[in-house]
Amino acid sequence: MRHIAILGSTGSIGTQTLQVIEANPEQFSVSVLSAHSNDSLLEEQIEKFRPELVVLTDKSAAERLAKRYKGKTRILSGEEGLIEAAIHPRSHIVLTALVGFAGLRPTLAAISAKKTIALANKETLVAAGEIVTKAAKENHVAIIPVDSEHSAIFQCLQGINMTSVRKLLLTASGGPFRTLNKEQLKTVGVSDCLKHPNWSMGKKITVDSATLANKGLEVIEARWLFDVSYDQIEVIVHPQSIIHSMVELIDGCVLAQLGLPDMRAPIQYALTYPERSTANFGRLDFSKIKSFTFEQPDTDIFTALSMAYEAGRKGGAFPCVFNAANEIAVQAFLSGKIEFLHIADIIRSSLNAFEASDSVTLEALLQADAWARKRAAEDIASLT
Amino acid sequence: MRHIAILGSTGSIGTQTLQVIEANPEQFSVSVLSAHSNDSLLEEQIEKFRPELVVLTDKSAAERLAKRYKGKTRILSGEEGLIEAAIHPRSHIVLTALVGFAGLRPTLAAISAKKTIALANKETLVAAGEIVTKAAKENHVAIIPVDSEHSAIFQCLQGINMTSVRKLLLTASGGPFRTLNKEQLKTVGVSDCLKHPNWSMGKKITVDSATLANKGLEVIEARWLFDVSYDQIEVIVHPQSIIHSMVELIDGCVLAQLGLPDMRAPIQYALTYPERSTANFGRLDFSKIKSFTFEQPDTDIFTALSMAYEAGRKGGAFPCVFNAANEIAVQAFLSGKIEFLHIADIIRSSLNAFEASDSVTLEALLQADAWARKRAAEDIASLT
Repeated sequence: MRHIAILGSTGSIGTQTLQVIEANPEQFSVSVLSAHSNDSLLEEQIEKFRPELVVLTDKSAAERLAKRYKGKTRILSGEEGLIEAAIHPRSHIVLTALVGFAGLRPTLAAISAKKTIALANKETLVAAGEIVTKAAKENHVAIIPVDSEHSAIFQCLQGINMTSVRKLLLTASGGPFRTLNKEQLKTVGVSDCLKHPNWSMGKKITVDSATLANKGLEVIEARWLFDVSYDQIEVIVHPQSIIHSMVELIDGCVLAQLGLPDMRAPIQYALTYPERSTANFGRLDFSKIKSFTFEQPDTDIFTALSMAYEAGRKGGAFPCVFNAANEIAVQAFLSGKIEFLHIADIIRSSLNAFEASDSVTLEALLQADAWARKRAAEDIASLT
Repeated sequence: MRHIAILGSTGSIGTQTLQVIEANPEQFSVSVLSAHSNDSLLEEQIEKFRPELVVLTDKSAAERLAKRYKGKTRILSGEEGLIEAAIHPRSHIVLTALVGFAGLRPTLAAISAKKTIALANKETLVAAGEIVTKAAKENHVAIIPVDSEHSAIFQCLQGINMTSVRKLLLTASGGPFRTLNKEQLKTVGVSDCLKHPNWSMGKKITVDSATLANKGLEVIEARWLFDVSYDQIEVIVHPQSIIHSMVELIDGCVLAQLGLPDMRAPIQYALTYPERSTANFGRLDFSKIKSFTFEQPDTDIFTALSMAYEAGRKGGAFPCVFNAANEIAVQAFLSGKIEFLHIADIIRSSLNAFEASDSVTLEALLQADAWARKRAAEDIASLT
């Protein structure tokens, strides 16, 4: 029996993780759940999965829940509560499905507590890849990716020596605006963005998918997860989202992982790794697949992708700045303050203005993150 | 340095194996070469690769070569020579690229001599899968497939527990006649057959590719190589021949191996296994790939495929009969004696008439093989 802590249990990945756990009660149990402010859904999850500890980072949500809840589960709140959740002694695996930079500290705490990390919070590796992967190595902790692309690569690499790897081929759906030109992109709205062709995901990642910033974040995530150079990571647009990613080997052979676009598959693999267990999420039926197509990403239009490579190559806190500016810009777009194309402009502005320090300590990253958020907010204010 | 014996060095697979060895002189050397009757090409190969032993199974070809050749390489002939070639003490790996049933005895000899088998002679496993795989297990000998489909599956299975495998998905180009109907197939000739859309191969296998008998042989080969049931093997037509085959796992994930249609890639992998080494056979360029398509094989038209499943499921010597009848029929087609659709008729006739004995000893298989060849020859005689 593996005991699972889910940080971010009321979001898209969190709820799908609970579906996987519910379908495999003999294999998994829930030790800890955390959410931001959705106390009513969290309460339902408590009833069903009986965790030992839950955390609502929003203090008033935690107070609401504590007032009406009469069961045995302990309720904590705030950032301190989240750290408690990450290091709970009963958990074997901590699945980090928090959105954005907020996942960094609890992930580092879980690593220090020797928990296996099922990583669904890519911003953690984007912002602090060097620190996180170093900590994982020192603590002999495995970081198992949940992102479908990285899970695909991770699966392909089982039984492969990294010296045999020439390239990682990250596939991208291309998002809902793949075929639009710059002029057309000026007028796209939030609701257009949220109609992702293949995947059902949270709002933030769906917008990132439309700008290709998500693919940029994934490139940086892949660099750290698999310890490869940026030259070894290539993005290929594959609109059907069936090939989840590929690995090209030094002898020219390419390994790929395929499946229906269903996050429960990589989630389950992260929980059962290195084993697999039977699942009934639906199976690929090649008699129904008409064709797979491939395109190059248009980085002249979707500049967030090339900016991610640029930030990644510059290193230090640049990926952190990229991520922070993007987070703020996406929030502003979702709340209707800025236009779609402004998201990339705001990232550009932060990357151009950022003055790197030599150190990549956690402190320096937090400062860079705060600086970029402030800078992005100023840019947004000047636009509105 | 790995010393390689190549049985069938003047054929398509044999010559490509020598290209791989030539490109990696620090990794491989040639210990033994064998051919049927092409003494002039074998002589060139001797000059270049300096094996310790060569064999020409055709005695007069061996005599011709022995008369003019003045070097150090030992020359043997006949079936006995081939057995010597298979067990030569210097060889680490015996690559069996003989065509047809003739590969069985030398392969068994090589297994007894504890050689790693790089298997390019699928008929060996088709005719005597149980005997060969049992011998390999008893001798702790690895059988590494060279067939591109089986190599693809073998590559996908590295790091996978066989209990996690739901299905093997063997891809098929569909051959040159994929889009023809039965009426059109009546009039296709040898030269139409030999225009295979993707692969450059020997004549026998190219005809087998056109009838889908080759895919049928591969299904039986896969059953033995990977110890799965016939229900776990599915054939999918993929006309582009880029996905060389796939494995579906119990959790719904599918792993695939892709590459250009170039036999040197699986050959090299068989020789370097479990490592890989750099190769420059050309690489998949996804910016140039328009699309991958998939179809179901039409087993109403290409009945050889369903007959292979039928023979495989009946077991015993039935696959051996399937193979022998097919070999004789293809020879007759290649020499212009019968029509294309007669090939399947002749296999059908042998499968229907065969009376199985209970034993699957080597002796029983040799008898079944001889019986089917005779029966097929009689059928051919009655047609012409």
